[in-house]
Amino acid sequence: MIFSKQVGLHRHLQMCVRALSSLRYKDLQITLTKTPTRTSGDDHLKFGAHISDHMLEVDWTAEHGWDIPQIKPVSPLHIHPAAKVLHYASEIFEGLKAYRCVDGKVRLFRPREHLRRMSATAERACLPAFDQSEFLKCIQKLISVDQEWVPDSKNQSLYVRPTLIGTEPTLGVSASNKAKLFVITTPVGSYFAGGLKPFSLLADPKYVRAWTGGCGGYKMGSNYAPTVAVQKNALEKYGCQQVLWLFGDDHQMTEIGTMNLFIYWVNEQGEKELLTPSLESGLILPGITRKSVLELSRQWKEFYVTEGNITMKTFIKAWNDGRIMEVFGSGTASIVLPVQEICYLDQKFNIPTDTDTSLTQRLFNEITSIHYYSKPHHWMETLDPEEEEKTAGCG
Amino acid sequence: MIFSKQVGLHRHLQMCVRALSSLRYKDLQITLTKTPTRTSGDDHLKFGAHISDHMLEVDWTAEHGWDIPQIKPVSPLHIHPAAKVLHYASEIFEGLKAYRCVDGKVRLFRPREHLRRMSATAERACLPAFDQSEFLKCIQKLISVDQEWVPDSKNQSLYVRPTLIGTEPTLGVSASNKAKLFVITTPVGSYFAGGLKPFSLLADPKYVRAWTGGCGGYKMGSNYAPTVAVQKNALEKYGCQQVLWLFGDDHQMTEIGTMNLFIYWVNEQGEKELLTPSLESGLILPGITRKSVLELSRQWKEFYVTEGNITMKTFIKAWNDGRIMEVFGSGTASIVLPVQEICYLDQKFNIPTDTDTSLTQRLFNEITSIHYYSKPHHWMETLDPEEEEKTAGCG
Repeated sequence: MIFSKQVGLHRHLQMCVRALSSLRYKDLQITLTKTPTRTSGDDHLKFGAHISDHMLEVDWTAEHGWDIPQIKPVSPLHIHPAAKVLHYASEIFEGLKAYRCVDGKVRLFRPREHLRRMSATAERACLPAFDQSEFLKCIQKLISVDQEWVPDSKNQSLYVRPTLIGTEPTLGVSASNKAKLFVITTPVGSYFAGGLKPFSLLADPKYVRAWTGGCGGYKMGSNYAPTVAVQKNALEKYGCQQVLWLFGDDHQMTEIGTMNLFIYWVNEQGEKELLTPSLESGLILPGITRKSVLELSRQWKEFYVTEGNITMKTFIKAWNDGRIMEVFGSGTASIVLPVQEICYLDQKFNIPTDTDTSLTQRLFNEITSIHYYSKPHHWMETLDPEEEEKTAGCG
Repeated sequence: MIFSKQVGLHRHLQMCVRALSSLRYKDLQITLTKTPTRTSGDDHLKFGAHISDHMLEVDWTAEHGWDIPQIKPVSPLHIHPAAKVLHYASEIFEGLKAYRCVDGKVRLFRPREHLRRMSATAERACLPAFDQSEFLKCIQKLISVDQEWVPDSKNQSLYVRPTLIGTEPTLGVSASNKAKLFVITTPVGSYFAGGLKPFSLLADPKYVRAWTGGCGGYKMGSNYAPTVAVQKNALEKYGCQQVLWLFGDDHQMTEIGTMNLFIYWVNEQGEKELLTPSLESGLILPGITRKSVLELSRQWKEFYVTEGNITMKTFIKAWNDGRIMEVFGSGTASIVLPVQEICYLDQKFNIPTDTDTSLTQRLFNEITSIHYYSKPHHWMETLDPEEEEKTAGCG
């Protein structure tokens, strides 16, 4: 009798669990487009302007959990005008890339790192948790379905954009009891058609991207809207392509546009050092390319690699001493991008950008050789979930 | 000949202007619902959960300007999955209210102030400008169409939510070259079913709502997403209904939840004073109810009315001296709302809330008598655009 009661309880618990469904790859439904639009040789388009044929979409409710995931032709989302995403920025996203490798296989760069960060961001934004591994399998399937959209070129890739939005159709600032997870993809060209093209930065202490006690360390949509006018102003008024975001009364250097900041210099102790702002403050987005740059350069053991802070004052002193060797940004879209000039308080600071022998170029070469698998690396994962099962955990 | 040339130029200029259309009330098209859902006596619903039958919708493109405005049945918006609103929080909104007044007419509270603030926010968010006066006429028409939805009760009103979102379907952080302006409305009950119900605040310096160089002074969607988890934490862990947002190392008191903060106290000079944080820092949302409270209480000339800063340290000293008379929040949703307790660094500070004779109650009475027109006031505007023409400019 006791045994039977226990079985009864077990079944009840199973049903409770079942009532709140999790996201499962095996439930995936696929509907293919009847009007494919892929044409070859059109990959020199503007970043993110040409969306691939199919998307992944999964709905969630607080009551029932995750609905079945679906791959289907890209089509407008039907969003209630009161949905929280349209009013309170209840939205988070990721950006990762798939590459057509030298062996012909398509691989994703560190997808598990991206989904781990997305989970952390979802929690901060009070959006629902999801099974990262199951979601990855769905993404891999989506890219398999649109495999033709992965460019066959060593300067191009398929940019993958997982997005999670709050869709509850009620006004009032609160956690959304409905959500939609979706993924779209877009073929993107290189930022570097003619090699690593250096760019200039406006460092204006008037504008601040993130602050202690805020969300700068998470990939929330709300971090981006306030930057658009600042970026526009930098370009139109100062001719600077990007913004160097400063923080605090001592003008700490934090990020570049939507990239992490790296400074390669001879530090105050006379040592060669690659420096990037520390994540500890919560101001800095924990970039996956940032992490990769740190891991690779630490393996080389050729110079110090430090996560710490640097102010404009310290930077200017080093610049005056001729100790600034390189400044670059890192990010999924651009990989690494050399800085040639910083405009700060009516002064211009030129930075060396000898692209042939630079650390920036070396990092770019190293990372792209991993991306396209001319240097096989466990950071890359194929689209075959079966194969993934074997290698899971080493990403 | 010269004259004819000038006419030609004039026509050319006219065509250029026409090519970029402005938002015009006279172009408004109306499609009524065939299935009206309004039932009486259902106005005790949760705030913002019951959306009225019709909405106003106008699309914009950088190329052609504003399309024709349309009033139509509320229905899901069709939004491309790459639209900037879903990724980068390209979204702003307003919240204003329509009241069924004692003379039976429906009136809006200071709508021109709300649309002026919305225009300023649109500019900060790189979303398109619109003719405020024409937009107001469209909103007035929308409320006329859904006039049945304006509750006939002195504790209720119709909440009106103009929203502007960036809809360009391309990834990449930049100004949107497409946008959608829409308005939905929802009948809302009073926050004060049983009189002014006092609430408690969690003041945790770990979380910061807005910061110098950010967008706290604008009504952008991006200000809200980061607050959801903080608010949830205040309620679930500390039993506090709202958050008192602090700023800076000296813990300046800035805002309450989504409301402006007021402190009625005897200041350090021994004078009775109503104090609210100054707009100068850019941290504080320029609330329309905040402005109304300041204007009314300045007219009374009974105590000092000051826009300035106050830190927790100054507050606690005054509290210890027994100089804190009242603390309240102000906002469109809640009008004024008394605070009974502030929880700060493991200490609890009780605030007097003698609602019968309090300043909070007096302000509530004064403002609601304006809302429902038992005290006629130029802040209220009827729904008749013809009538509005005559009184424009005094709002």
